[in-house]
Amino acid sequence: MTLGELRTFMAETFPQVADEFEVVDVAPMRITVEKRIGEKHLRPGNTVSGPSMFTLADVSIYLAILAMVGPKALAVTTSCSIDFMRKPSAEADLVAEARLLKLGKVLAVGDVLIFSKGDAAPVARASLTYSIPKG
Amino acid sequence: MTLGELRTFMAETFPQVADEFEVVDVAPMRITVEKRIGEKHLRPGNTVSGPSMFTLADVSIYLAILAMVGPKALAVTTSCSIDFMRKPSAEADLVAEARLLKLGKVLAVGDVLIFSKGDAAPVARASLTYSIPKG
Amino acid sequence: MTLGELRTFMAETFPQVADEFEVVDVAPMRITVEKRIGEKHLRPGNTVSGPSMFTLADVSIYLAILAMVGPKALAVTTSCSIDFMRKPSAEADLVAEARLLKLGKVLAVGDVLIFSKGDAAPVARASLTYSIPKG
Amino acid sequence: MTLGELRTFMAETFPQVADEFEVVDVAPMRITVEKRIGEKHLRPGNTVSGPSMFTLADVSIYLAILAMVGPKALAVTTSCSIDFMRKPSAEADLVAEARLLKLGKVLAVGDVLIFSKGDAAPVARASLTYSIPKG
Repeated sequence: MTLGELRTFMAETFPQVADEFEVVDVAPMRITVEKRIGEKHLRPGNTVSGPSMFTLADVSIYLAILAMVGPKALAVTTSCSIDFMRKPSAEADLVAEARLLKLGKVLAVGDVLIFSKGDAAPVARASLTYSIPKG
Repeated sequence: MTLGELRTFMAETFPQVADEFEVVDVAPMRITVEKRIGEKHLRPGNTVSGPSMFTLADVSIYLAILAMVGPKALAVTTSCSIDFMRKPSAEADLVAEARLLKLGKVLAVGDVLIFSKGDAAPVARASLTYSIPKG
Repeated sequence: MTLGELRTFMAETFPQVADEFEVVDVAPMRITVEKRIGEKHLRPGNTVSGPSMFTLADVSIYLAILAMVGPKALAVTTSCSIDFMRKPSAEADLVAEARLLKLGKVLAVGDVLIFSKGDAAPVARASLTYSIPKG
Repeated sequence: MTLGELRTFMAETFPQVADEFEVVDVAPMRITVEKRIGEKHLRPGNTVSGPSMFTLADVSIYLAILAMVGPKALAVTTSCSIDFMRKPSAEADLVAEARLLKLGKVLAVGDVLIFSKGDAAPVARASLTYSIPKG
């Protein structure tokens, strides 16, 4: 799927959250996705919530897979391991740089670095496994 | 902290999300927390989103720690590993049964089983590490 | 598989390591396995190496699966998340209490608590996913 | 620490395992380590055991940290998440390419890709957290 197709897919399939995410770059086995940070994503200490970072990691790998295999909305996350390494800024959007390390018939594995936009030190890293439906 | 104190703390500290969670039981090193499931938590396939389960796991361990050490809002998640094992029902709330396995001066470790309310087979398991601020 | 069958299977299939492990109890979806600790498992600080604990976690879930599905030597670990919480004693064997949380046709998920024998506080926790071969 | 200093440190501090590992490259926040594969590392299906890969990931991050902070033998692994993605060849040594993503005063986080030497597709990925002793 192209960048434009991914954006349309997001808007149609995940209307609850699609406006928070923007696919900014896609390439074979790689994708870059940004997440708009608003009041509802903030937490005490002037930072962004862990679930906001988790969601971005999850969406990024999902879209990286779909970019490779086509619009299979029912691909599901089977596991995620995430490390929160630095406090994200409450004033910056988040950027995820994701890559697929394995794209099998049944399982896909990828990892993600998440940054506060404009800062070179990653705020989180995550690895995820997805189960890919047949057909 | 007692069950009542935890509820008050949630309402005051996390007004964005507090109404979604209910602490239903608390004991030394253990807590049970429910999450109300609404339209915004759903995903294709008539199920509940992964981030909804992650958030519940995260909140449960956070509250289990606070129940033991008092209201330290700035305790932060340093890592989470989560396995999504079964599709949660879109019609049921989620229930998390969390326990602390280690409560050190600097780090706490706990794990969580998440269920669709009324179903005995867990939909997810998670383990989390929190960093506890000094003082 | 019974406790005796598991022991025989280990001796025949993993001659490199079978003498280090002893299945001490097996029940539906649960198993208890001990690991003999010797000089080669020790590390600076008078403790047991992380890989020794990882290996015990891995073997325990493997045997818990085989106890349920029969001797499929080619079941393979697809992921593991492990937290090392306390220093194991160099003078005690390790004990793993493992349970299966999901036993599907393709994937199995389980978690493990590891103890230094005789001490009630767990030294490590782990969760593992196995891929189960067909047929 | 230089490459030579790391090799000497390994031989003196981990005599049980040092001859299995070779540091082949070290740079700021990065290291490449190889592991010699012998009979004892093999498993049914003509492949290399999971614990062998775990051990290599663990050693690699440990040495990457020591290369930055000096010979602190008591740095300890606090957690590891590892995904086994492809069967390693029983005939090839393993190569780990590790990088540190965070090197704090108390905690360090890094991730690792593991390859069968000569093959471009990674056989495993891992992320690890280490606790760094004071002083």
